[in-house]
Amino acid sequence: MTTTTDTICAISTPPGIGGIAVIRVSGPKAFEAVRHIWHGKDLASARHASALVGEIMDGDHILDQAVASIFRSPHSYTTQDTVEISVHGSVYVQSRLLRLLIDTGLCRLAQPGEYTRLAYLAGRLDLAQVEAVADILSARTAGAHRIAINQLKGSLTTRIRELRSQLIDLASLLELELDFSEEDIEFASRARLELLANDIIGQIDRLTDSFATGQAILTGYPIALAGATNAGKSTLLNLLLDDDRAIVSDVHGTTRDTIQDTFKIGETLFRITDTAGLRDTSDPIEREGINRTCKVINSAHLILWLIDHRTSDSEVREIWKQLSLNLAGHQTLLPVITKTDICQEVVDANIKRIKEILHDLSGVDKIAQETPLSHSISDAETLQMLRDTICRIAAPHTNYQPGDVVITNERQRQALLQARAELQNTHKALTQGLPPDLVAHHLRHAISSLATITGDITTPDLLATIFTRFCIGK
Amino acid sequence: MTTTTDTICAISTPPGIGGIAVIRVSGPKAFEAVRHIWHGKDLASARHASALVGEIMDGDHILDQAVASIFRSPHSYTTQDTVEISVHGSVYVQSRLLRLLIDTGLCRLAQPGEYTRLAYLAGRLDLAQVEAVADILSARTAGAHRIAINQLKGSLTTRIRELRSQLIDLASLLELELDFSEEDIEFASRARLELLANDIIGQIDRLTDSFATGQAILTGYPIALAGATNAGKSTLLNLLLDDDRAIVSDVHGTTRDTIQDTFKIGETLFRITDTAGLRDTSDPIEREGINRTCKVINSAHLILWLIDHRTSDSEVREIWKQLSLNLAGHQTLLPVITKTDICQEVVDANIKRIKEILHDLSGVDKIAQETPLSHSISDAETLQMLRDTICRIAAPHTNYQPGDVVITNERQRQALLQARAELQNTHKALTQGLPPDLVAHHLRHAISSLATITGDITTPDLLATIFTRFCIGK
Repeated sequence: MTTTTDTICAISTPPGIGGIAVIRVSGPKAFEAVRHIWHGKDLASARHASALVGEIMDGDHILDQAVASIFRSPHSYTTQDTVEISVHGSVYVQSRLLRLLIDTGLCRLAQPGEYTRLAYLAGRLDLAQVEAVADILSARTAGAHRIAINQLKGSLTTRIRELRSQLIDLASLLELELDFSEEDIEFASRARLELLANDIIGQIDRLTDSFATGQAILTGYPIALAGATNAGKSTLLNLLLDDDRAIVSDVHGTTRDTIQDTFKIGETLFRITDTAGLRDTSDPIEREGINRTCKVINSAHLILWLIDHRTSDSEVREIWKQLSLNLAGHQTLLPVITKTDICQEVVDANIKRIKEILHDLSGVDKIAQETPLSHSISDAETLQMLRDTICRIAAPHTNYQPGDVVITNERQRQALLQARAELQNTHKALTQGLPPDLVAHHLRHAISSLATITGDITTPDLLATIFTRFCIGK
Repeated sequence: MTTTTDTICAISTPPGIGGIAVIRVSGPKAFEAVRHIWHGKDLASARHASALVGEIMDGDHILDQAVASIFRSPHSYTTQDTVEISVHGSVYVQSRLLRLLIDTGLCRLAQPGEYTRLAYLAGRLDLAQVEAVADILSARTAGAHRIAINQLKGSLTTRIRELRSQLIDLASLLELELDFSEEDIEFASRARLELLANDIIGQIDRLTDSFATGQAILTGYPIALAGATNAGKSTLLNLLLDDDRAIVSDVHGTTRDTIQDTFKIGETLFRITDTAGLRDTSDPIEREGINRTCKVINSAHLILWLIDHRTSDSEVREIWKQLSLNLAGHQTLLPVITKTDICQEVVDANIKRIKEILHDLSGVDKIAQETPLSHSISDAETLQMLRDTICRIAAPHTNYQPGDVVITNERQRQALLQARAELQNTHKALTQGLPPDLVAHHLRHAISSLATITGDITTPDLLATIFTRFCIGK
């Protein structure tokens, strides 16, 4: 639908009332369209990157005093002639100005992300950079922002193109062999080709691994709150979130739905999910909640396991049995012994007892386990200790080093995984001594997969999906 | 608190995420502050009204690609050096950029309306124009917008200054007389002075009268829905508003609170208030509701009186008795006979009967009464007829003629009323032959009152009140 011959217009600033608002007009007829409603210095003769003061005319009336900033093709965001009209940020003025522009018959309302789409069509941005623009707009922390800015600067694009160029080199070596196949000469030693393929697989793996970091930084480092019902999970959640998001109650099994929220410690974003308590139950609704708990635990990086100090040995072991089914070695378990302000006379003995059980649990050595926290978590000092511990555990996964290439979305990850699978096929075909054209077939698919990341190969569907993330006006 | 030596900064576009956002920096150190975080063409040497492409630096990192528009003193909104920085409209980028600017130590966060306040302090806008800026931002219709634009262009200011200059002429005539009072010469004939004072009072009255029009256009032409309980008021309200704002029920007396909402017919804004039914009641809560009804009817321009066609003669007269107590000659009464789709066999007879009663009501000749509408209002055609009638009645009070000077707020009205009162005192003193210094005393007060409208005379409190209407960034 987007063509480079249409002229488009839209409100580019956030919706609502503000001091000023900016309406952006871009396309071959941008100057002509604005000239129809402009009273002031001539737009056509205005120099690139100049701001003209004038008036927007609504028929014979003045709609508003305005500043029109002129950007001449190709030196604009879209690479087309662009006028950015700055007016009073009233809802009436914004909508009326848009109507006046459309009524000139020279431009139409822009679709979501269409300015960026024009920049993409003109080759000013590739697809990874387009996604970076959307990431910049939705970034909530310095880390998320820096990854996006880095990607907008072309870091991911460069990395992907490097990989592609290595694959193309590999392919040309194979094709040489193909051309001379009848002469039975092996220009490219099979062993060398295998090594090359393996090396590229390794590079792709490192990039795919960066997805976890990207996700942790963009959407928050994932933490699960686990433990028996009534172990104090909701209370801890509230303390961390600093509000009353979850309903705290003394009835066992209050939290049936998983509750997810984000909080920041310093500049790090965390995504914490409260879960239904882990316990045997016949209630089908609660059973469903426990199933969800398992999924949440599975996908978290850090599991806060809350244990009421009065919990019996067998109960601790029972919960562990359920927990351990959903834990893997890359996850960290942080036991928190809770309710230590209740039944104070037995607290110390209970803490000692539970720490011993925790130490003895079968399979616990397979998990990165932290020293249990056992002070009252409603105590500010212990809460701070907990926050510090969480930060320390998350740090390796949320520390973005400027310049690191990090992939940030599932689309990029899927393309990499597909490229990797084709490279493994390539490798297998090589080791099996299959004919070069079969090897080359897999290689070509791997190259295509990588090309979708930067948009060197694309489909209308893919573009449509990417641009739905955008607002109108970007 | 606002001084012309501070440099201020704020997000000037509406809050939230958008394609772009604009941060405005204004004051003597605007260029210096931005230069601290700017990487690109030199700002200091940039010409007035030019747009520079560059990067905002957050330490060693790039925060964002940006466009900085340069406005040199005195050719900016505030009359001070101003840089408008256009960046990606992400919440992070906006807040971080603001933080970076403040951290330079060269500027501080602007207060609500402070840019406009600077324009006022520099004499670029007077107080009526400042209020016009706020009116432009909140305008919802073309009419409201045009009044505000007209006021921003200085129409009210010109009118007020004309009045003031007439008063000053009057005062100088009086002072002449004062200077020569011992010589017993009357330079200004008392009769001429009286005429002049009266003429100015007339001019002020015309301006004060425009307040009703201003209010009707800005906040909506006021309509009251009146009638017995269960006469179908809430149903009609919903039809006019086209949603389910009021709860419709068959229990008498459902609508206890007054419900107010606005709707547009074409470009005219209406403010309609549903009322508690008018009927005798011992329920104190309902009684309170009926008291409120009276107030609403009092302040409405058009009263839609809904009458169920089955209402008995005595009931119609009873409601009229209550209604008429709150009606004055400038208001219009539009009876609507309702529920004509119920008990159809007696509808025609009932409509005839009620029309006759309406015609005979005592005192009804003092009210501008419309021909009763009597078709089923849920019928689209009748609803359209009702809308047309409403528009026709409202037209003289909501039609803004471009160029008309209209006052739009209570502050302006109060100042005019005060000036008028002092002029009446002046006139009285003249007719009573009081000494010129007493006459002059009243005249000076009248002049001062007018001066507060344009802000030629002002107080910190007055300014504070006016600027609370503004958002930060304007």
